[in-house]
Amino acid sequence: MTPSARPFRWPVRVYYEDTDAAGIVYYANYLRFLERARTEWLASMGLPLQRLETEHNALFVVHRVEIDFCRPARLGDMLEVTVLPVERGRTRLVAVQDVERGEEQVARARVGLAWLDRSDWRPSRIPSALLERMETLA
Amino acid sequence: MTPSARPFRWPVRVYYEDTDAAGIVYYANYLRFLERARTEWLASMGLPLQRLETEHNALFVVHRVEIDFCRPARLGDMLEVTVLPVERGRTRLVAVQDVERGEEQVARARVGLAWLDRSDWRPSRIPSALLERMETLA
Amino acid sequence: MTPSARPFRWPVRVYYEDTDAAGIVYYANYLRFLERARTEWLASMGLPLQRLETEHNALFVVHRVEIDFCRPARLGDMLEVTVLPVERGRTRLVAVQDVERGEEQVARARVGLAWLDRSDWRPSRIPSALLERMETLA
Amino acid sequence: MTPSARPFRWPVRVYYEDTDAAGIVYYANYLRFLERARTEWLASMGLPLQRLETEHNALFVVHRVEIDFCRPARLGDMLEVTVLPVERGRTRLVAVQDVERGEEQVARARVGLAWLDRSDWRPSRIPSALLERMETLA
Repeated sequence: MTPSARPFRWPVRVYYEDTDAAGIVYYANYLRFLERARTEWLASMGLPLQRLETEHNALFVVHRVEIDFCRPARLGDMLEVTVLPVERGRTRLVAVQDVERGEEQVARARVGLAWLDRSDWRPSRIPSALLERMETLA
Repeated sequence: MTPSARPFRWPVRVYYEDTDAAGIVYYANYLRFLERARTEWLASMGLPLQRLETEHNALFVVHRVEIDFCRPARLGDMLEVTVLPVERGRTRLVAVQDVERGEEQVARARVGLAWLDRSDWRPSRIPSALLERMETLA
Repeated sequence: MTPSARPFRWPVRVYYEDTDAAGIVYYANYLRFLERARTEWLASMGLPLQRLETEHNALFVVHRVEIDFCRPARLGDMLEVTVLPVERGRTRLVAVQDVERGEEQVARARVGLAWLDRSDWRPSRIPSALLERMETLA
Repeated sequence: MTPSARPFRWPVRVYYEDTDAAGIVYYANYLRFLERARTEWLASMGLPLQRLETEHNALFVVHRVEIDFCRPARLGDMLEVTVLPVERGRTRLVAVQDVERGEEQVARARVGLAWLDRSDWRPSRIPSALLERMETLA
């Protein structure tokens, strides 16, 4: 992860389903947006993630989120969600993810992901093919 | 199912998560309320549904919904959701479900459920223990 | 609405948020997909819907849904959701909406929409600018 | 907030709507559970929160969440969600919230809430009636 690494970006439109009676995006729904962006980021690496999951009987699970809600987003807003991996361990990844509306920061999150074995739900080694691919792209 | 059958009732509180920017309960969320009531209705029959599912490798899946939204529900409303089975076949059930706020009808649904085999996702015979239990309670 | 009218189409990717423990898309979430497509369809007519809503202090609200779930959709599926208005009244619209995965039909819905005045939550006349625009596009 | 303060507790049943295709509760949905418990906690203080909101044209908005997901919760689980305020400022509150399944900790969160004026969406002074009530209960 060099300092020059540029984050992956994914657009998200705000629909009624995302908002609440306060007229703004309901706070839990930002976590849905973050996951859409992470899914598309993994897909963008051209890695057959679902095949990796099947082969290894494992998957990425979020074990920690820190998120600051800076400004409310509203119905019809066009947002962009970023993904930038900032730490990589044997079994874990940390990604910083921003939610932006044009120049404005709507939310900023730090998301900890663990590669878990489905059989015992414990941390397992991230497949090297996946780590190498991230290395190349950073 | 005799005409005198009385529906099962389940309370649902409306939280921010259920509402949208129009200030009312988002329409899709009524289907979540309906399913909570059906789940509790099945549980209330004292049948180990999850064991039935495991034994038979099958589960109830909704194959059709008709729903009329009569009045908007709002943040903080205390609703009641009913379940009344009105048709029972070998592989299917139909239930009428109302969403009420006191004397007012908020929504009325007719829900078709199929007992599906998980291996091929096809209709399968509803376990007789379950059908008999419903018979007794009706 | 001539018979030759072609439906509007909108792509929807299935993420973890859309699925449930049965391994398929949770039934209520199809209603979210349907609404995304209707929102984009209205936006695609180049009509300032949100301005219409503000000017008229009114909005479209779903008053009825009939939906058949034909085949389960799964994590990672790329779906298409259609919108085809089939009836138009002074205060109401009916749209047929399909959810498709390639050649397969995943779900088919018939959705009744009412244009409601926000002040009393009662049906109001759909703005002529909107009706004319639909006429042109049909 | 004395060390002896005991947290408010609220039960949450896990339904299909809460789970995902990994067979566990979808991570964003824990934030929904947390908010249900906070809402019931505020209601339990016997304060007319909705009247306070109307009078002051203000409301509590979450501005920060830190959450650790310790163990997966599953379909049918009966959880308990706690609320314990640990910091109180003029315009902000911090609450610690646990999600428990019997003796097991499923998740632990630290939630920052701001009392925001609806007109400009800026921090405003928490009504003294509310603060005093919390003081009494702590």
